Amino acid sequence: MMAAIELRMQILALLDHYVDAIDNDDLEAWPDFFVDDCLYEIIPKENVDFDLPAPLIRCENKRMLRDRVISLRNANIYPPTTYRHIISGLRIVTEDADGVAFTANYAVFSTNVDGETRIYQTGRYIDRVKKIGDAWKFVEKRAVFDTSRVQTLLALPI
Amino acid sequence: MMAAIELRMQILALLDHYVDAIDNDDLEAWPDFFVDDCLYEIIPKENVDFDLPAPLIRCENKRMLRDRVISLRNANIYPPTTYRHIISGLRIVTEDADGVAFTANYAVFSTNVDGETRIYQTGRYIDRVKKIGDAWKFVEKRAVFDTSRVQTLLALPI
Amino acid sequence: MMAAIELRMQILALLDHYVDAIDNDDLEAWPDFFVDDCLYEIIPKENVDFDLPAPLIRCENKRMLRDRVISLRNANIYPPTTYRHIISGLRIVTEDADGVAFTANYAVFSTNVDGETRIYQTGRYIDRVKKIGDAWKFVEKRAVFDTSRVQTLLALPI
Repeated sequence: MMAAIELRMQILALLDHYVDAIDNDDLEAWPDFFVDDCLYEIIPKENVDFDLPAPLIRCENKRMLRDRVISLRNANIYPPTTYRHIISGLRIVTEDADGVAFTANYAVFSTNVDGETRIYQTGRYIDRVKKIGDAWKFVEKRAVFDTSRVQTLLALPI
Repeated sequence: MMAAIELRMQILALLDHYVDAIDNDDLEAWPDFFVDDCLYEIIPKENVDFDLPAPLIRCENKRMLRDRVISLRNANIYPPTTYRHIISGLRIVTEDADGVAFTANYAVFSTNVDGETRIYQTGRYIDRVKKIGDAWKFVEKRAVFDTSRVQTLLALPI
Repeated sequence: MMAAIELRMQILALLDHYVDAIDNDDLEAWPDFFVDDCLYEIIPKENVDFDLPAPLIRCENKRMLRDRVISLRNANIYPPTTYRHIISGLRIVTEDADGVAFTANYAVFSTNVDGETRIYQTGRYIDRVKKIGDAWKFVEKRAVFDTSRVQTLLALPI
């Protein structure tokens, strides 16, 4: 039981830290939450439901994540949007020598320069993490979103 | 303290599991989160505030929950709506031989075929659970919702 | 590790209790979550970002919190708005003899008499708490909100 609580706390701490970097505009820290040969996807739920997993965003290693941050910084002279992530319902799916697989619900709210807050998207993380030294890192992170009317081309990470 | 943490973890795990079944369209699993002679209600906050507890939905045993799932499946050829539950603020109210009573805040978002995500309802669970063998089951589950403009006739469970 | 889990649980319990009082219209209990010489602020994120911290609401001690509750009760014959707080992403920042500093994301939903639920505001708590006897109390509570189109003059506490 104690080990289960400890694991849950560590995964929650990782997610909280991850979200904190995005919501507080520390995008440069974002790639370091991943291992080098990671997989990061933002993918519509309907594609997953119909087993046609064509992601809107797909990064196949940490270098691609770094490139994405550079694009975002260059495209946006001043970050016009604030994200606010709310995470709930963490479920550990498997735990083995390869790491830990888990899912969690998320809701992301965005506030633009007009000052109004909207639901940016809701969805579900389907993640796999591995412990590298003392730190948990994402091996795979899939944000499977419900909201199909979503602008992702120059959007912040989920 | 350890017992309190363990209990909290188990209640959270139950809620997370429950929500996961609804949000991922596993409605057939939903009745099994309850004991046979359960009470399940969806009820407007204003009714509770004025002590006129006329629920919109009231199921008085597990059979009625199963009937409800069948109705939902027959009414909806393809599930057109995705729910996404976010739960926060779990508070254990009482713990005794009869089980555990607790409350928690919830926000449920819905995404229709138009792909837009809306606030479906916010509210508060007022629940009672009992341990049956190794598993916690709902004896009573009341979803007291703030949002009175809510379509519940053929809505998914909350 | 055990001490960290225990601390986290206690801070979560405090936040859950605090939110519960506001969401369930127990405003009179609200000031008692603070020490006498507390600081309570509701402050726009853009002000914090530009280091111009002009808060919309600033209470410099518990007496001012009590005055605020009286104003709210006098201004509103019957509380027309229900708030629903969702909190996520608790992060302990420092822990020392002076207490514990932490941050957390929040989303507050409001339901007016029209029965529709809207995003009232999203934001981030930047808090400091201290243990007084057996109970944790807020020494400082800052609600830094993203949503600038917010009506705060006679709004409930965040």
